[in-house]
Amino acid sequence: MTQPSKAAPNDTGAAPHLEVIPLGGMGEIGKNITAYRYEDEIMIVDAGLAFPESHQMGIDLIIPRIDYLQQNAGLIKGMILTHGHEDHIGGLPYILPRLPRIPVYGASLTLGLVREKLSEFGIKDGEVDLREVQLTDRVRIGTHFQVEFIRMTHSIPDNAGYILTTPAGVVLHTGDFKLDEEPSDGKTSDLARIEQAGKDGVLLLLSDSTNAERPGRTVSEAEVARNLETLIAGIKGRVFMTTFASNVHRIQNVINIAHRQSRRVVMEGRSMLKYAQVSQQLGYMELPEPFLASDEVGGLQDQQVLYVCTGSQGQPMSVLSRLAFGNHAKIALRRGDSVILSSNPIPGNEEAVNLVINRLYEIGVDVYYPPTYRVHASGHGSQEELATVLNLARPKYFLPWHGEPRHQINHARLAQTLPRPPKRTLIAKNGDVIRLSQDEFKVTGTVPAGAVYVDGLGVGDIGDDVLLDRVNMSQEGVLIMTAVLHPTPHVEVVSRGFVRANRELDGQIRKVALEAVEQGLREKKRLEDVRDDMYGAVRRFVRKATGRNPVLIPLIVD
Amino acid sequence: MTQPSKAAPNDTGAAPHLEVIPLGGMGEIGKNITAYRYEDEIMIVDAGLAFPESHQMGIDLIIPRIDYLQQNAGLIKGMILTHGHEDHIGGLPYILPRLPRIPVYGASLTLGLVREKLSEFGIKDGEVDLREVQLTDRVRIGTHFQVEFIRMTHSIPDNAGYILTTPAGVVLHTGDFKLDEEPSDGKTSDLARIEQAGKDGVLLLLSDSTNAERPGRTVSEAEVARNLETLIAGIKGRVFMTTFASNVHRIQNVINIAHRQSRRVVMEGRSMLKYAQVSQQLGYMELPEPFLASDEVGGLQDQQVLYVCTGSQGQPMSVLSRLAFGNHAKIALRRGDSVILSSNPIPGNEEAVNLVINRLYEIGVDVYYPPTYRVHASGHGSQEELATVLNLARPKYFLPWHGEPRHQINHARLAQTLPRPPKRTLIAKNGDVIRLSQDEFKVTGTVPAGAVYVDGLGVGDIGDDVLLDRVNMSQEGVLIMTAVLHPTPHVEVVSRGFVRANRELDGQIRKVALEAVEQGLREKKRLEDVRDDMYGAVRRFVRKATGRNPVLIPLIVD
Repeated sequence: MTQPSKAAPNDTGAAPHLEVIPLGGMGEIGKNITAYRYEDEIMIVDAGLAFPESHQMGIDLIIPRIDYLQQNAGLIKGMILTHGHEDHIGGLPYILPRLPRIPVYGASLTLGLVREKLSEFGIKDGEVDLREVQLTDRVRIGTHFQVEFIRMTHSIPDNAGYILTTPAGVVLHTGDFKLDEEPSDGKTSDLARIEQAGKDGVLLLLSDSTNAERPGRTVSEAEVARNLETLIAGIKGRVFMTTFASNVHRIQNVINIAHRQSRRVVMEGRSMLKYAQVSQQLGYMELPEPFLASDEVGGLQDQQVLYVCTGSQGQPMSVLSRLAFGNHAKIALRRGDSVILSSNPIPGNEEAVNLVINRLYEIGVDVYYPPTYRVHASGHGSQEELATVLNLARPKYFLPWHGEPRHQINHARLAQTLPRPPKRTLIAKNGDVIRLSQDEFKVTGTVPAGAVYVDGLGVGDIGDDVLLDRVNMSQEGVLIMTAVLHPTPHVEVVSRGFVRANRELDGQIRKVALEAVEQGLREKKRLEDVRDDMYGAVRRFVRKATGRNPVLIPLIVD
Repeated sequence: MTQPSKAAPNDTGAAPHLEVIPLGGMGEIGKNITAYRYEDEIMIVDAGLAFPESHQMGIDLIIPRIDYLQQNAGLIKGMILTHGHEDHIGGLPYILPRLPRIPVYGASLTLGLVREKLSEFGIKDGEVDLREVQLTDRVRIGTHFQVEFIRMTHSIPDNAGYILTTPAGVVLHTGDFKLDEEPSDGKTSDLARIEQAGKDGVLLLLSDSTNAERPGRTVSEAEVARNLETLIAGIKGRVFMTTFASNVHRIQNVINIAHRQSRRVVMEGRSMLKYAQVSQQLGYMELPEPFLASDEVGGLQDQQVLYVCTGSQGQPMSVLSRLAFGNHAKIALRRGDSVILSSNPIPGNEEAVNLVINRLYEIGVDVYYPPTYRVHASGHGSQEELATVLNLARPKYFLPWHGEPRHQINHARLAQTLPRPPKRTLIAKNGDVIRLSQDEFKVTGTVPAGAVYVDGLGVGDIGDDVLLDRVNMSQEGVLIMTAVLHPTPHVEVVSRGFVRANRELDGQIRKVALEAVEQGLREKKRLEDVRDDMYGAVRRFVRKATGRNPVLIPLIVD
């Protein structure tokens, strides 16, 4: 399974080649991390996390496997970060300590968020080598990699793509992007640089596939701001607005709208406050007036207040959920209030968000959300934007990235419809080793890749076997039979999540179990076999009596 | 909590009044059942089931509580069924046996599906009193209820609304509906009858709120058929199409399209075959050529076959899922095949459907689904259609029905924008007793209502406490400590779904537990207290050591 860790010199007489090795974010949306290897040098791009799917029960978050990087630790020359979203930097506190100390390059806000995150994990500034770049800077990593950061618009400031120049050729990676023509900070994507790179020759393009199934263009952040301004101007009572805490421009726009409409802003929720603090410190957020605390609004009328709060994904402990369920310590919603969800549910969160929305309606609050109200825009470009990048970059080879297979394949098909399609496109997945030179572009092998589950304090101590037990217990519950052999054999039965306390059924199960035990003892079987007999007898009985298959745990006390 | 079961005669001198008592389907989408009571007579409309939400783990399905009906069993005069969908008839096998034998009225296909369902549960024809009606028939139920069935278009044939005439006034109930102007059987909704009822005077309208948030009109079934025909005409290889098995018209249209395009139809999946069989027997489905079995297509070319199969919701055991995961016994998908999902995921099924779609892409199959391809239409009318019914019926009172609070409230708001809004609208919920006369329209009390969980063979033996255990175990696993007191105290530890086998941690837990037990014994505590001490000590230790809270089960063997 594992790639030999020796260097792979270009000693075959072939053209110099580069390896692209996605370890996360290829064939999925989440936990982005990509390695590039040229001869005996490796550089890394991003180190993100993913949130669990519903069958990954009880998991807090997921980080990518980095066996390949650990096995080749001595070759790693540096890392670059494209932007400050969790799926690009959230894995750093777990991953950086497992790698040698390497320079980590990123823009100002990105590194500010990284510092905040590392300090939460008790990792001190001196333990990592963070190096700030401007989004036009070029940095050299090792002897073979030259990285030029380029500005791309997205749903967080300081978002970067990059042009990677290697002896094997030039790679253009968009990073996450949309081509917002009216970004809130006025800084549009650097299409001129992409066009120039295209003219100079791009060997490989990696481009964001998230919205490859959506026709047209993604709505601009300015359009969202205009819609929010019109909406809020028409609201008489208190306004509660939620969005992704990392959407600094959206929140800045709402702060400005509130100011223009003579509303003071109250910010509620830990992650909201954290992003706001880092953004202000680094000059990415400006407050016309200071935030008020929720206990400072007493003298204000309802139409003079606007709350920005966490909870756009229906998270149970978020401010909006606590407001909706009436268990916020300081604030109670009431008829006449308005709630704006400036967000869409991320796949998997639909039920949770729907529950919150229904509770808000039941309180009598006015609730505004997409698609009825156009108060959100994706951070990822749609087909027209993807086509623009492909047309400008004119890559020889193409890797649709940052997407599930459906997104990657539709991105690949889109590329084929263009006037100058790539010569070759690969639908890659995590762990693929993609070899790249002027003459070839193919998967030549695989390295270990996949998910490491983080749960509580544990990292990697939960595997798929443990998750399977959780799934089984969630479906049918658990039933524990304890056979005590002395002085007289008897069996105790305890269950959780199986059926309501039912003495008759418990008694029957005890009887079936005891018969199996007594027979085993009479036949002088080994205790393991007696235990297995008890297990089998109870399983058959329970299945027949209840139609169910709880997780059975047989214990024998000798 | 419970409503007294005595009759509620109109002896107060007030105008005669009717009670509407929704027991399911009000404030939710699913398990529809509504009772009407006039003096000492009750009639019932529908008896559906609901599918569990994700937190209702391991539950097979949910039926409504019918305590009110059981307590007033002697007053029940009859039942009517609006159509054959599971959320309207799926509860019958559980509910009918718990009620006295009453006449059950429904249209031909509806009763055909009911018979099929009852026979699966071993309930014989003679045990129930099913009475077939045409969709213009009037029937009398008891002495006070006159029901006139009216045709409404929906995503299943023979779908009915009704006009209920009582001494207290006239109720118009749309049932589930859209106003399809080009229904596949040519039979449009009976708007003329609704208009006439409006002129004659409708006291109360109950109308379908499902799509109250959607502007415009819902796409016609004919439009879907045209889009499917164009799409399939362009496909060269095998076609696999899935939709809801109950969407008889959609399936008939696809059968006709296949015939016109010289494709033979193979039908795969138990529920598909069941609906097709009942529909054919009753004349709702006609086959230009017989279905082929999947082992009869050997001599045909790829473009001569079309499979209709189950799996539109990503159900793991469905035909499409087995095809996607490569474990169907007879059929293997391959590059060049096309799969059409003529359906949208029902809320909660998004992840499962997405998984299947991605697997299909990975196989190299061409996959067609909404919204990119307009190959599905909802069975429920959008705002324009809802407005049309409100405008024609001109009800004095309005109960937005068949929706969650967000749908009900938006339906209510829509009604207020119309030229002749209802005099009063109530946002009701299951269990409300809604009193209705010419002079009043209000909630006067509540009766028990809610969910009965069906799991395996058990009906109602799982409560929210059991579900909470399942949720907890799914998040953190379970850990069982067995303290054996004789001859020398020792503790055994077993866990499931907690962490990977970890001897060191197990040893520490055993030590912590044993110390608590030994101290308790030294202090001569009662065994219950010793057990609680062990529980507390282990809980504290595990939380600190792992950051987790597994479900702990302490056992003491004396």
